[in-house]
Amino acid sequence: MDAAAAISRPERSIEILIALAAPDMAAVDALIRDRMQSPVAVIPALAEHLIGGSAKRLRPLLTVAAARLCGAEDDACLKLATAVEFIHTATLLHDDGVDSSELRRGKVAAHLIWGAPAAVLVGDFLFSRAFELMVEAGSMEALEVLARASRVISEGEVLQLTSAHDLNLTQDTYLDIIRAKTAELFAAAAEAGAISAGASPEQRTAMRAYGTSLGLAFQLVDDALDYSGTSEALGKNPGDDFREGKATLPLLLAIQRSGARETAFWERTVSKLQKVDDDFRRARELVASTGAGEATLQLADEYAAQAQAELEGFASNSWRPALNDLAAFAVSRSA
Amino acid sequence: MDAAAAISRPERSIEILIALAAPDMAAVDALIRDRMQSPVAVIPALAEHLIGGSAKRLRPLLTVAAARLCGAEDDACLKLATAVEFIHTATLLHDDGVDSSELRRGKVAAHLIWGAPAAVLVGDFLFSRAFELMVEAGSMEALEVLARASRVISEGEVLQLTSAHDLNLTQDTYLDIIRAKTAELFAAAAEAGAISAGASPEQRTAMRAYGTSLGLAFQLVDDALDYSGTSEALGKNPGDDFREGKATLPLLLAIQRSGARETAFWERTVSKLQKVDDDFRRARELVASTGAGEATLQLADEYAAQAQAELEGFASNSWRPALNDLAAFAVSRSA
Repeated sequence: MDAAAAISRPERSIEILIALAAPDMAAVDALIRDRMQSPVAVIPALAEHLIGGSAKRLRPLLTVAAARLCGAEDDACLKLATAVEFIHTATLLHDDGVDSSELRRGKVAAHLIWGAPAAVLVGDFLFSRAFELMVEAGSMEALEVLARASRVISEGEVLQLTSAHDLNLTQDTYLDIIRAKTAELFAAAAEAGAISAGASPEQRTAMRAYGTSLGLAFQLVDDALDYSGTSEALGKNPGDDFREGKATLPLLLAIQRSGARETAFWERTVSKLQKVDDDFRRARELVASTGAGEATLQLADEYAAQAQAELEGFASNSWRPALNDLAAFAVSRSA
Repeated sequence: MDAAAAISRPERSIEILIALAAPDMAAVDALIRDRMQSPVAVIPALAEHLIGGSAKRLRPLLTVAAARLCGAEDDACLKLATAVEFIHTATLLHDDGVDSSELRRGKVAAHLIWGAPAAVLVGDFLFSRAFELMVEAGSMEALEVLARASRVISEGEVLQLTSAHDLNLTQDTYLDIIRAKTAELFAAAAEAGAISAGASPEQRTAMRAYGTSLGLAFQLVDDALDYSGTSEALGKNPGDDFREGKATLPLLLAIQRSGARETAFWERTVSKLQKVDDDFRRARELVASTGAGEATLQLADEYAAQAQAELEGFASNSWRPALNDLAAFAVSRSA
């Protein structure tokens, strides 16, 4: 049985959420295009390459959906949603140069076209634009949440960088890393939406917890797919994490479970990054045969269920089942 | 006559300003040390390398001095001053990786010790911390000014990147670049100080204009010193700009003034970056012999005088002559 087939599941749909959010997301799209403009031509060109087109925009969607779930009737959430997407795109630009990724969102990574320096600086531009949008939105509380998230993301990225190649990284440290580098922005995106809707402290807390659990589920699946997905589905090359020696959960579990007989293989490929062509195929098989991929997805399922539980306290307007679907989608996707 | 000697001048002192600001700057220093902490150990280590020690801290000094000149009696300016220094340090970290600089503030550049990825991510950390500090300071107006400045800086850096190697760059475009990449933060630093003091709109405008002119003067001198200073005095290697083909004013003027007989030399060294050992010595001589260095410093003098003129509308408390000294210092320094 093929490793990819072993962990594929029926994909759940977020069609209802997408249809509900369509007018808001069209407005966010217009804001994104408007605010990535600059008299310096390279900036919109590089930003368009990454932001235009096929991006899923899950994070701004989360801001919008959280605001509407909390009863928002005005458009205060739209600038914050745009800011969230700009922060996310800035981190991708800084991260891709760091990771030397070759593909991103199905396209050649920006740093390979315009060079790493331009990619870093356009990341700074988008990051600054995000804060300008937050100032326009006028909520000091939302600014606090998103400034903190930006800082926590950078801490998570540095922790990941210094933890690479560590065969003995604990699951707890791995979870600390993905909580910071991924789940924190999901949490802040949802909380900022709640803030913009004037939600109660309890609703803010619940939306934040929903975002955290959703983000953890999302990253766990992402890390599993890096050992089981295809380039076509992922929009990036599978095996990137393995090639970089990134200590993600499927790898850590496969190392623990494959025992002493594979120690030399893992030390050579992950600790020392001395690779030959066939290594990724073998790593992929070990992740599948030890059940490490499946265990990673099971943990993701638990977080998705936790996210869904956070929705229980909300009045059941049409956004509640749609956000329930989003958590199911996060753990069923193949890309 | 040596090129360096040709443009040296008596150095003016800012001792009075430094003494006046000492209690405030000690508080800023404590805030800097407190806010660069992180449980991720690489972050304070890398930040300490760059921020601790010999940094001049001109920009936060400007925020403090502007606030006090405008009559501030509380400490509202201190968090904003710290935010300004963090923004500046973040841009240095991102810029050094971009420029491949080897020395910064008299030390080996951070990206050479910890790697470019860590330097970029710690830049993001400091940038985010800056916005957290601004949120604590609680002024949406100051946030607006500093978010805009951060965005303009990134635009200036990208414009500089795409204008490198251009022998025909106009003086106007050069001034646009340094207005964005340097003077904007001086302007925002001074304006944020005025805002924190509850200054009048006229005072804010004057402080902003003072900062802009000071920043232009400062960068013009910096660019001149890159052709006339010494490593010991500068804390970085002279000739960095020339080695990277950066189209700064002393170079542009030397190209214009040295005429057709040097065209092949400039095309080889600046457009094509094909250098041999002796090229910087020759470029340095041409910058001196054509008067390009001196003309750059004369323009700096004009901006310094404009900065001083902006102080005329302020009541003459002890900070006014100290800020007058600062403008004189900016154009007399040898480092």
